[in-house]
Amino acid sequence: MKNILLTIEYDGSCFHGWQRQQEHRTVQGELEKALSRVLGRDIKVDGTSRTDAGVHAYGQRASFQTDSNVPIEKLPMILNNCLSEGRVLNESIPGEIRIVEAKEMPPEFHARFSSVGKTYIYKIKITEVMDIFQRNYYYQLTHNLDIAAMKKAATYITGTHDFKSFETSGGTERETTVRTIYSLNIETVSNEETNKEVNIVITGDGFLYNMVRIITGTLVEVGLGRRKPEDPEDIIKACDREKAGHTAPPSGLYLSTVYYDKAELQSG
Amino acid sequence: MKNILLTIEYDGSCFHGWQRQQEHRTVQGELEKALSRVLGRDIKVDGTSRTDAGVHAYGQRASFQTDSNVPIEKLPMILNNCLSEGRVLNESIPGEIRIVEAKEMPPEFHARFSSVGKTYIYKIKITEVMDIFQRNYYYQLTHNLDIAAMKKAATYITGTHDFKSFETSGGTERETTVRTIYSLNIETVSNEETNKEVNIVITGDGFLYNMVRIITGTLVEVGLGRRKPEDPEDIIKACDREKAGHTAPPSGLYLSTVYYDKAELQSG
Repeated sequence: MKNILLTIEYDGSCFHGWQRQQEHRTVQGELEKALSRVLGRDIKVDGTSRTDAGVHAYGQRASFQTDSNVPIEKLPMILNNCLSEGRVLNESIPGEIRIVEAKEMPPEFHARFSSVGKTYIYKIKITEVMDIFQRNYYYQLTHNLDIAAMKKAATYITGTHDFKSFETSGGTERETTVRTIYSLNIETVSNEETNKEVNIVITGDGFLYNMVRIITGTLVEVGLGRRKPEDPEDIIKACDREKAGHTAPPSGLYLSTVYYDKAELQSG
Repeated sequence: MKNILLTIEYDGSCFHGWQRQQEHRTVQGELEKALSRVLGRDIKVDGTSRTDAGVHAYGQRASFQTDSNVPIEKLPMILNNCLSEGRVLNESIPGEIRIVEAKEMPPEFHARFSSVGKTYIYKIKITEVMDIFQRNYYYQLTHNLDIAAMKKAATYITGTHDFKSFETSGGTERETTVRTIYSLNIETVSNEETNKEVNIVITGDGFLYNMVRIITGTLVEVGLGRRKPEDPEDIIKACDREKAGHTAPPSGLYLSTVYYDKAELQSG
């Protein structure tokens, strides 16, 4: 048996999230259908992150076992063709899932359990008039953000803390709510239009359910002047979801990178 | 009875086009459902352009009759709230249809028959790696276009001609295939990324079925060096669909403006 790791890019707009569901179209579901057809047997994959409905990915990872003889280097092209076929144009425009890479890993490797950390990007657009063609890809705000205040707030979140206040209940089971955030950067993106873009780039060893979106919601409230930059210190201490900010919408969230190497993680 | 004209913006990605269909989600269908709910009786609208599946609009128009007392200036807000309600996030993210304006017109006004012309924008993106987050909004090409050659080709298309070569059969009935193109501009959009954007902006008194997409396909073939800039002259003379270029995909096409005033049309 070979153990294969896929790197997957997807537009989450029209999916009911990553995880396989009987009734709904999901990324895992579509990917497993394509893999099963291409490899001629029933394939189940293990994904790294169970992204929610509407959340996107540049670099989701998933691993699976196969005894197929299909050359691994050809797998992305074959899968991408399969994923684009036989679709009604406006139910699913080809290309909403793209396999970026496939590679063989040692037998003990697992896409989720071998992961040592991840980077997420959260994209915000500040614009007076909402652009309907970008509604699936940004959190659109109408007011300017105080970037300096947000950067200060971010310093309280970076590091090793109990992030219970930044978790929606109902996620997957976990042993502890302590996580380490290696970096949390607020980046302004220059743009030829008058609209402003702000990216929140966050790297950590793991994330609780909705953690990135609640951190973003909290930082946005700081940026809008509704909270003080020092607030995250008390929010973390409280271990109470009610103390943190709102959950930012899924549309702005992108799973960027999954790390399997500690050195790479701490430098990323 | 009042005669109301709506200006409508929509993201066509997840619709089976404009026109009402029993089985499928369409822009007209969703709009009529919202209007009927808001106004408390069954409303049917007349749209200006029957845009295809995947085609977008900045300024579609539709008119309808009503004896409702709902203040017209409040109609956009009420309709937009209604259009965003009760949706499963990832089947239809709120905001894919936006009512920009509502105004009362004279009784004899009709959104389609009173129209004297339209402007469409066709958006092309030149990029080596396809961006899945933009696949619904551009025609993505991997090779550079010769803009000067395209501009030259456009001069043969501008003016009054029989555009039978630029029509897909199966459209709505029409008395003649002669149309007037008032302007056809090839505009390069500066972009902070290395990717290049080219917009084809075309204004005419009317368009045959798929006409803008076939003109675009032909211009792209000129831009790629597969046809000569002078080709459109012979293509028009031939009155034969086989002579023109390919039909560019719907994703890049935007209905921009509908004109009800000849002076405005010729200056636009």
